[in-house]
Amino acid sequence: MKELVTPYDVEGNVEYDSLVKNFGVDLIDNKLIERIEKLAGEPNYMIRRGIFFAHRDMNWLLDQYEKGNGFYVYTGIAPSGTMTIAHLIPFVMAQWLQEKFDAEVYIQIPDEEKFLTKKNINDLEITHGLAYEDALSIAALGFDKKKTHIFLDTEYAGTMYKNAVRVAKHVTFSMIKDAFGFTNETNIGAIFYTSLQAVGTFIKSVRDKKNVPCLIPLGIDQDVHFRIARDVVGKLGYYKPAIMHSKFLPGLKGEPKMSSSDPSKTIYLNDDPETVKRKINSAITGQQSTIELQKKYGGDPEKCSVCQYYKYLFEPDDKKLEAIFDGERSGKVLAGEHKADLTNRVNKFIENHKRERDRIRPHLEEFMLKD
Amino acid sequence: MKELVTPYDVEGNVEYDSLVKNFGVDLIDNKLIERIEKLAGEPNYMIRRGIFFAHRDMNWLLDQYEKGNGFYVYTGIAPSGTMTIAHLIPFVMAQWLQEKFDAEVYIQIPDEEKFLTKKNINDLEITHGLAYEDALSIAALGFDKKKTHIFLDTEYAGTMYKNAVRVAKHVTFSMIKDAFGFTNETNIGAIFYTSLQAVGTFIKSVRDKKNVPCLIPLGIDQDVHFRIARDVVGKLGYYKPAIMHSKFLPGLKGEPKMSSSDPSKTIYLNDDPETVKRKINSAITGQQSTIELQKKYGGDPEKCSVCQYYKYLFEPDDKKLEAIFDGERSGKVLAGEHKADLTNRVNKFIENHKRERDRIRPHLEEFMLKD
Repeated sequence: MKELVTPYDVEGNVEYDSLVKNFGVDLIDNKLIERIEKLAGEPNYMIRRGIFFAHRDMNWLLDQYEKGNGFYVYTGIAPSGTMTIAHLIPFVMAQWLQEKFDAEVYIQIPDEEKFLTKKNINDLEITHGLAYEDALSIAALGFDKKKTHIFLDTEYAGTMYKNAVRVAKHVTFSMIKDAFGFTNETNIGAIFYTSLQAVGTFIKSVRDKKNVPCLIPLGIDQDVHFRIARDVVGKLGYYKPAIMHSKFLPGLKGEPKMSSSDPSKTIYLNDDPETVKRKINSAITGQQSTIELQKKYGGDPEKCSVCQYYKYLFEPDDKKLEAIFDGERSGKVLAGEHKADLTNRVNKFIENHKRERDRIRPHLEEFMLKD
Repeated sequence: MKELVTPYDVEGNVEYDSLVKNFGVDLIDNKLIERIEKLAGEPNYMIRRGIFFAHRDMNWLLDQYEKGNGFYVYTGIAPSGTMTIAHLIPFVMAQWLQEKFDAEVYIQIPDEEKFLTKKNINDLEITHGLAYEDALSIAALGFDKKKTHIFLDTEYAGTMYKNAVRVAKHVTFSMIKDAFGFTNETNIGAIFYTSLQAVGTFIKSVRDKKNVPCLIPLGIDQDVHFRIARDVVGKLGYYKPAIMHSKFLPGLKGEPKMSSSDPSKTIYLNDDPETVKRKINSAITGQQSTIELQKKYGGDPEKCSVCQYYKYLFEPDDKKLEAIFDGERSGKVLAGEHKADLTNRVNKFIENHKRERDRIRPHLEEFMLKD
């Protein structure tokens, strides 16, 4: 299958090396990892493990930081249903960046985007409600409410539309058509939408009335929005944003990207413990076809979705992760044990997250940015 | 020259009959004129003279009115500089409709439109300032501030963007490309923009949370926005707006449409008396090439831009207009006399209008609708 990676489609076998080449981004190498660790004062497991594996202009951003010009972090999510654990990756990174670099975080929840791009979402009231659920799930990840601004496009339109128009003047249909997989049959709201996503890259500069560097942690499928935005914001007099790109959390059945539209392959933040157990039990692992073969030859943690879940989100300690991988490789630990352990961790995470959501709920408005 | 009539270009010889056919609108016939006069309680010179010459669904609108379902009036202007007297036509009609049909009036001033569609307008702050000048010029035409709502797209974006998105979902690039003369090199803000213009056709229904009939008086070049809007708003559950189309006030040099981008052919609302005099003196008339020939054969008021100015804006009394036309036809009145008289009338109008602007200025905010 031909590889296709746009914000609206991730199909086929995702070859990250070719994405790096095609998108024109740089790999995060050891030197950059060391520099980030040194400035942050501690390593970040997602960067060390190559989950965030590529970037644009990170060295420029860190130069700015070293000169005393702080940066802010911008990321977001388009609401379409309950968030999955895969959706957490850029937000976990954003929260870490906030903590270690004292960065303000702007989180855009474009509640119109899926309405415009999905045939089955026909009511903006629905995405509006989902947006607030997402805002709560994100706020519950430990963000500092004094330094975190969450906004919905429809509720911050006074600021967003005006600035989106400034972007749009410089973006023709030709420039975006192929990059987004659009045709003449695409609706004009979806065509315009990338202008709003671009505004996040200079929103703090608009609010502060001075140029502030911006760092965007995101899944690499979103890169196209910012390839276009980076060209334009320079023309508007703003810094081009730096970007850190993450890989996709694999699906439970071994798909290259965990899809939020296939419930069986995905864990949602509101799945109950039995559902989580059932889903993880049905996951593809890297183990041999029988217990006897596994004990004899061992398995491959890189092909094991259970091991990948540990790597991406559920075992931040590198040594402990290595022990888990070793158990799989050596054949000493069978799939059932890993699955049971991962199920416990995921369920504990979801339970804690729900508790945090309940705790934050009465304070959510303090995070929200409105006109 | 091929005839081209879109909101962005009016070129060549405008044949109103062929526009009526191509756009699929109906002519305003004597029966409809009588019906409007009867319900209004008085004739309207612009309708009687065929300045407003075509319509969509006016009989439906008047049926609604007779049933006791009031309608509201929606029109607008995209700011690009000082308004010309040609720009006044739909607003003069809107004010009359307000008075005679007790209609609320919504006036959209899309301060982003010319920024998006004109290469030489590169600052939204400029169009924002122009928008307020336009708002003042419109308010000064006698609108009732209790029943008139003027809004800028960027200042009412919380309402406009959300509802524009609802429209945009139903409008593909294919559907608008040819109608607006767009290409793949058109910017994505200009492509999206018609969605915002469509919102005016149901803005009162959104605010009142019930379906309210809408009537739009406009220059026929704007019809395309509403051909598209009418298809969409039906899908959103709103009434299709009724429309009354006006012809273009001819340019002073006999052009089919007075262009606001050529100062010598156009009278601006802030032209000083000497400028008005100079412009009108250089106008093309329908008179013969010499005074002797004119006295002998007379001229043609339909080809005389001076006579047309009387007809469109500066002589509402039909009998007096006929006397002016007769003077031209018979050769009894020479061009110089008509020009001197028209100059007086235009200068008096501008003087009064300026005074009205000054009077309204401190109260302008009472007309403005914001989020």
